[in-house]
Formats: sequence, structure tokens, C-alpha cells
Amino acid sequence: MGQSKYLTGNSAAIAEFLDKFDVFLFDCDGVLWSGDHVFEGTVETLELLRSKGKKVVFVTNNSTKSRQDYQKKLIGMGIPSNIEEIFASAYSSAIYISRILKLPGPHNKVFVLGESGIEQELRTENVPFIGGTDPSLRRDMTPADFTGLADGSMLDPDVGIVLAGLDFHVNYLKISMAYQYLRRGAVFLATNLDSTLPMSQTFFPGAGSISIPLINMIGAKPTALGKPSQAMMDAVEGKFHFDRTRTCMVGDRLDTDIQFGIQGGLGGTLAVLTGVTKKEHWEAEEAEFVPAYYVDRLSDLRGGSS
Amino acid sequence: MGQSKYLTGNSAAIAEFLDKFDVFLFDCDGVLWSGDHVFEGTVETLELLRSKGKKVVFVTNNSTKSRQDYQKKLIGMGIPSNIEEIFASAYSSAIYISRILKLPGPHNKVFVLGESGIEQELRTENVPFIGGTDPSLRRDMTPADFTGLADGSMLDPDVGIVLAGLDFHVNYLKISMAYQYLRRGAVFLATNLDSTLPMSQTFFPGAGSISIPLINMIGAKPTALGKPSQAMMDAVEGKFHFDRTRTCMVGDRLDTDIQFGIQGGLGGTLAVLTGVTKKEHWEAEEAEFVPAYYVDRLSDLRGGSS
Repeated sequence: MGQSKYLTGNSAAIAEFLDKFDVFLFDCDGVLWSGDHVFEGTVETLELLRSKGKKVVFVTNNSTKSRQDYQKKLIGMGIPSNIEEIFASAYSSAIYISRILKLPGPHNKVFVLGESGIEQELRTENVPFIGGTDPSLRRDMTPADFTGLADGSMLDPDVGIVLAGLDFHVNYLKISMAYQYLRRGAVFLATNLDSTLPMSQTFFPGAGSISIPLINMIGAKPTALGKPSQAMMDAVEGKFHFDRTRTCMVGDRLDTDIQFGIQGGLGGTLAVLTGVTKKEHWEAEEAEFVPAYYVDRLSDLRGGSS
Repeated sequence: MGQSKYLTGNSAAIAEFLDKFDVFLFDCDGVLWSGDHVFEGTVETLELLRSKGKKVVFVTNNSTKSRQDYQKKLIGMGIPSNIEEIFASAYSSAIYISRILKLPGPHNKVFVLGESGIEQELRTENVPFIGGTDPSLRRDMTPADFTGLADGSMLDPDVGIVLAGLDFHVNYLKISMAYQYLRRGAVFLATNLDSTLPMSQTFFPGAGSISIPLINMIGAKPTALGKPSQAMMDAVEGKFHFDRTRTCMVGDRLDTDIQFGIQGGLGGTLAVLTGVTKKEHWEAEEAEFVPAYYVDRLSDLRGGSS
């Protein structure tokens, strides 16, 4: 049962809130837009923050897109942004592998379960990989595959990492290969563990749906590089060198965004009610993560300084 | 830390053991054979039991095969059997749906994640179904699929059950469809929950790997119809009307076979050491399921009455 300060319509409180932070980390879907619909006032609110000298970072668990893809999406939605402001889980995975994990070659190859966004980011960081969008793996399992995976002849001995993200082309063959690499000791990483992907006003299988069979088979969890994993916060901080106490996480999900900000020791968290979370969720007895502030919609922040 | 009676080489104990039971439920892989290799003495041991008037039932979690398929497999391995002795999880799922669940029509259609064995058993029980081996679902997800699943236009309003078994052709589209049916209130069943499938001296994704993304997405477990689920024991009993106190479960896995027998209140359980379990496993402090008897190999039972 938590206390959260309501800012909507309270211009003094909004002004005070804005003064407390230099950096705003934004979750996107549910905050800036929903599906293909950009919320009214999104662009103006981001403009307001920038005009006040605030740093804006877009932090997304979307693993199918590279930062470049994601910037195109933002621009396409009319949201001005540059690539350096974007932090997606494919990117955080790539820099985790190249700058933190740093496995010695040649056993540092990544077997990818995922789409081209992951491949692009791995390429940018010069990380060798196989799998991913390889068309030769988009097929049925054959009897030769069963024996070739069992005796290892179909496996690349240089693979030392399995990275599981959202793969719209997941199949039995790819899961079987990933499992064999993990059995042989590969490091298990996941771009993020979201079980579902919000889309078209409903939900579809998320990146967590790709890794969960592997978790169930090997009985161990991957290191996750998306929110709320602090590996992502460390990566964001490593890049932007911000002062955590003057940074605020803005999001619509308590168990992803708000948890991410609280566990990261940020100076503040702001919930918006345009996504999946209702006020009742954090006012419940058992609510674990309570935002420090909340607004009905992001654009309510514009009511602070006119 | 359990007490288990060792029968190998003890002819008096074996004779006493055999006298206690009229029915033997057999797990197959790891007990009668391993992969394609039938253990020496398997056929003779089954013969011995039958010659003493014992009833033999083959109880398998294999969900890809119908009883007919499975009998062919047994015959092909040189193991005499008839179809009435075979109890596979595809069959137990079909009779659970048709004789126990009995949903009123027309909302009693099953969306199947699985192979032809499940379809055959559903057909035998006159259960309507879609999905399964339907070739039109073996394809990539399209933008039209996202909208058609979101607005329901691609969904069959008569589906009232999702049945998840081992599907070698699982893909994003089929998992998305199953999830949408579950969101709309379909009953969630699984042939079995084994995370892995032993094959070619290693493991591959099992039926549990198909249902686990759905469990993770909807936050609820299916009713499982394979071992160790007692729904399967009830189905076996419903068919054979045996006296549980004079029935013995024979298997190689503590957390599947032995658990199945103990929780089913059978008169006894017999572990064989030709599969995944070692004696140390049930002698461990924390062992939950301890077999009443054990032998090194099934054919050791032949040493009782010569």
C-alpha cells in the first residue's frame, strides 16, 4: 500500500517535480503512444523537457528492432529523436556481450534466437553470431537433425553464448539447437523476459515466450538485459554517465518500468495511466513497486509552467 | 531418505513381489528399451508376467503417437502387445475431453497444438478439433494475422478447449492462436508437462516446452493428462477397473513414474536403474518419492521362479 504524489492539474507540484531531475528515461508503448496511435501532447511534452535542458532517453524492451530501426519508428510517428537517445534491449544485449561479458575468442560466438534488430546491434559491436534470421534454420526438424544435434556434428564449437529475444520465426529446430548449446555450457542471455507483447489492442507472445522453454528444460534462468533487469540500468548509466539521484523513470508498468527505476536507485519514478497500470494496482496492500509520482497522461506535465 | 527393497538376485523376494500384484503398469523408454535399443530380456520378462496371468499395461507420456502408432512401434521392436494394453497421453487426453470434461456443443471444439497421434485419438472419440497438423498453420505470421487474431475474425467461436502436446511444427502463429483462445476462456489442457524428450542419447524439447509459453503468458497451469497427473491414473483405472492395491507401477523416473504410482495409491512401485534415475537419487535426504522396490534391470525379475 503505497503513497504516490498525483501531479495532474497541480502546477506547483509539477514545477517542483521537473526541477528535481535532469534526465528522464522513457518507456514508450503505453506512455508516448499505444500501438500506432501517438497520444496527444507527446511531442510537445518532450519538447518542453528538452527546452528546459533535460536529457531524454527512450528505454525499450523491444528486441526485434535495432536503435536505427527504432529511430525510424519514432520519426515515423512524428517524434523527433536521435539515435543516441535510444536504448533498446537488442542494443543493451550487444554491449553487455562485447563490453561486460567479453568472452575470450574463439568461443565467443553467439547463437541468436531473434530477428534482425539483434543481428544489427551485434554486428555494430563486432560480436560474431549465427542463427537469428538465417533462412536455413526456418524449416522443419529432420531425422538427420536429431542425430546431428545429439552427436554435436551440427553444432558450431565456437558458440559460447545463447541470446534469446523475440523471434517471430521460432521453431522446434532452433529451440533444440539453443538447448544443445546451453547443455554444452553456453552462457544464457535474454534480451528481456516479457511474456507478452502488446500489439493491436491485445497481446502476443513476447521475448519471454522464446526463452521460457529453455529455462524449463535446463532449470536455470538467463541474465536478462531488458527492464527491469539492472544489467540494463548499468548499461544505460555506462553510456550516459548520469546522476541517478537526478534521474526519473517514466513508465506505465509497475513490474517493469517502476521496478526498474526503484531498484536502480533513481531519484524518482513517474507512472502514467495511459497503459496497463491503474492507480488501484499500487494502492493494493500487496503492491511491491509504488511510483513516487503519477499523472493521468504524460502531457499533463505541460500544466506546470505556463 | 527412503527405504527401497532391492530384488535383483533375491529369488525369494522376487517371488513374493510377483505374488503381490495382478497388474503391472509399465513406463516404456528407459524400462523396456532406450532409444532404438530393446533391453535384453524385455520380451521374456513380459512373457513371464503374462504366463503368470498378470495384466500388462504400457503407460506412456508420448503424445505424438496414437495407441495404434504406439502398438506399431512396440511390434516393430519385437514386443508383443495389443492395442488395449496401451495407454498414451494423447489417448488419455481424448477420453478426458469426451468422457469427463464433456463440454456442451457447439463450444466443445479443441484447438490442438500437436501431431497426428492426438488428432487420431480425438477422432476416435468423436471430438471436433482444429489446428494440429493443419498445413495452413505451418507458416510465418503476417500483419493480417495480428489484426485477425486481435479482432477475433480469425478465431473459431466454437473452440472451448486448448490441448497442448508435443508439436514438432510449433510456431509463433500457433502459440498466438492458442493464447487468444485461452484469453477468451478456453479450458487449458496438456497431454503432459515433460520439459524434455529423451531421444538419440540426449534430450530435445518435450510437450512441456509447447505449453510453458502459454502458462507464462496467462499465468495459469493446464490440467495435464500424462504421468504423474492423477487424471491419467483415473483414466487408466476407468478403463481397466483394476484393484489399485494389487497394481504396481514400473518406471525409471522418480518424479514421473514413481510419483505417479505413489500418489495413485498403488500397492507398489518398482524402479529400474536402466533409465535416468540412480539409487542415490531416492536415498538422498530430500528425495520425495521413493520406490517400494528396485532392480538393476527389468529382466532381473526373471530370477525369481526358475
